[in-house]
Amino acid sequence: MKLASLKEGGRDGTLIVVNRDLTRAVRASGVAPTLQAALEDWSNIAPRLNALYEGLQAGKVADAFDLDIDRLASPLPRAYEFVDGSAYLPHVARVRRARGAEVPESFYTDPLMYQATSSGFLAPRDPILAASEDWGIDLEAEVVVVTDDVAMGVTPAQAADHIQLIGLVNDVSLRALIPAELAKGFGFLQSKPRSALSPVFVTRDELGDAWRDSKLHLPMRTWINGQWFGEAEAGVDMQFSFAELIAHVAKSRPVSAGTLVGSGTIANEDTAKGASCLAEQRTVETLRDGKPTTPFLRFGDRVRIEVTDKDGHSIFGAIEQVVERYSPA
Amino acid sequence: MKLASLKEGGRDGTLIVVNRDLTRAVRASGVAPTLQAALEDWSNIAPRLNALYEGLQAGKVADAFDLDIDRLASPLPRAYEFVDGSAYLPHVARVRRARGAEVPESFYTDPLMYQATSSGFLAPRDPILAASEDWGIDLEAEVVVVTDDVAMGVTPAQAADHIQLIGLVNDVSLRALIPAELAKGFGFLQSKPRSALSPVFVTRDELGDAWRDSKLHLPMRTWINGQWFGEAEAGVDMQFSFAELIAHVAKSRPVSAGTLVGSGTIANEDTAKGASCLAEQRTVETLRDGKPTTPFLRFGDRVRIEVTDKDGHSIFGAIEQVVERYSPA
Repeated sequence: MKLASLKEGGRDGTLIVVNRDLTRAVRASGVAPTLQAALEDWSNIAPRLNALYEGLQAGKVADAFDLDIDRLASPLPRAYEFVDGSAYLPHVARVRRARGAEVPESFYTDPLMYQATSSGFLAPRDPILAASEDWGIDLEAEVVVVTDDVAMGVTPAQAADHIQLIGLVNDVSLRALIPAELAKGFGFLQSKPRSALSPVFVTRDELGDAWRDSKLHLPMRTWINGQWFGEAEAGVDMQFSFAELIAHVAKSRPVSAGTLVGSGTIANEDTAKGASCLAEQRTVETLRDGKPTTPFLRFGDRVRIEVTDKDGHSIFGAIEQVVERYSPA
Repeated sequence: MKLASLKEGGRDGTLIVVNRDLTRAVRASGVAPTLQAALEDWSNIAPRLNALYEGLQAGKVADAFDLDIDRLASPLPRAYEFVDGSAYLPHVARVRRARGAEVPESFYTDPLMYQATSSGFLAPRDPILAASEDWGIDLEAEVVVVTDDVAMGVTPAQAADHIQLIGLVNDVSLRALIPAELAKGFGFLQSKPRSALSPVFVTRDELGDAWRDSKLHLPMRTWINGQWFGEAEAGVDMQFSFAELIAHVAKSRPVSAGTLVGSGTIANEDTAKGASCLAEQRTVETLRDGKPTTPFLRFGDRVRIEVTDKDGHSIFGAIEQVVERYSPA
């Protein structure tokens, strides 16, 4: 099934069920008010949402309405936890090679992950607000999964069954703020502001063969200002599956219902596939030409992120955002 | 006023108002179901909670009951964001001196902060669960503040008025997991599991003169297994006020209602005040004797963290936790 949230009803939005074609929807009223509430009682709520989805697919649901993506919040407008990985080692290796460093051997066995902000996610069509272009504004197109409750100490095999929803995230990054922040040693804070999520999240069964080994086996398509930017394969070169990433997080604590786990920016060994973030593209240029030529995002620039199935149908809907200048009140 | 949450009514607990002596309480039913809900509409809800508090103080509230701290969850049993600082530079300087390094000049002007987990806070009397003593289990006694909604780009002066509640946090740290995690460059994840909050959070006015310049001017008292461990002054050697820490976080994004901002482990230049974490104590020993002698926490060890007013009355109630072995199901 496919789930989304309307921008109405409060800070967590209003849960709706969306049809496969992303054209029709129905409020989940009487089943669960919000996606967070559904995830907190997933084993009971999911079958009832699925029944609603089947009714919607069959055209048998009263109160269905045409889906307007501009009216959508992110499926989780906020969450209690977002832990983001950096699971595509070609990205890590390339960035390090550009500065003459090696990838530590441990990176192939121990996932690189960080604690990200989750107190608010931009809607899929919300602007990216920044006070200055000098911040080095960048997209990062990633796959993200959502869990129900996961016990501390789970194995990857156990964690795989706790992946309840899959979607996309634009992990907005402020590249110019990253070096000084990472040099302090405690990770990202100002340099990773709010991210945007895809219009809908879907269950594993909705992906069919494209969901295998706790990875999404489809290309991540990105455009900047309408120009093709990349179609890196999300199922290729992902060193750690989502099940492994979840088990990594759960080593020393439980993982709560509604937690988002991100893959990291999608990157393949094969650079002909393009990139999923400008930092990657600029690194490829630096290795090839000695310096980067593609600039970071400027005010007015448009970003589009989408994954389609083998027949070209959008699975999650597209994230489409414009970069805008922010001025404090 | 003083606020707390009962372990009842769901994942966010049930909001109660507690009297100044921490002996009596009343449910905030009809005003706000949870502390999170109160913070989301603080300007309307706070006066009504305060009226309930005044009634409770005057002994004029029906349905008041004796406070039993064992029945309390953390005031926020979970939150959408927890950003923790490291604002006491004597701690930073000492740790670096022990390994022969300098404190970068920028640390005196640019706050060191990190994104922490907020999806679950241990209750003030919950055990600290760890799979192994080899993880190097440590306490960190800190002051924490809670904000209402804060706009992106606020100044420290503006941020000061958004500090709505003050409390304590035991920022549990797994020292043996920290070096490898920080070496990867993206900050803490496994090494900073769930923290515990103090039984009650209080408003600024409740602290009188002890709240000045967006800092708490009282000693942080800690005990391990009933033995005095420290009474470092929270108002001394705090390089950045909470207002400055909030403004730092808000540089590139809004800060949402119910966000927790931590001070970092309290540490003074004056080592006679003792320590607020074992890592600090061990660093002092290393600088003095060449090696640490105090071990990290072991299963069965008890930690106590409390702040009292000038008359010796507990302000926030005490965090009291026992370390226990965790075995996955």
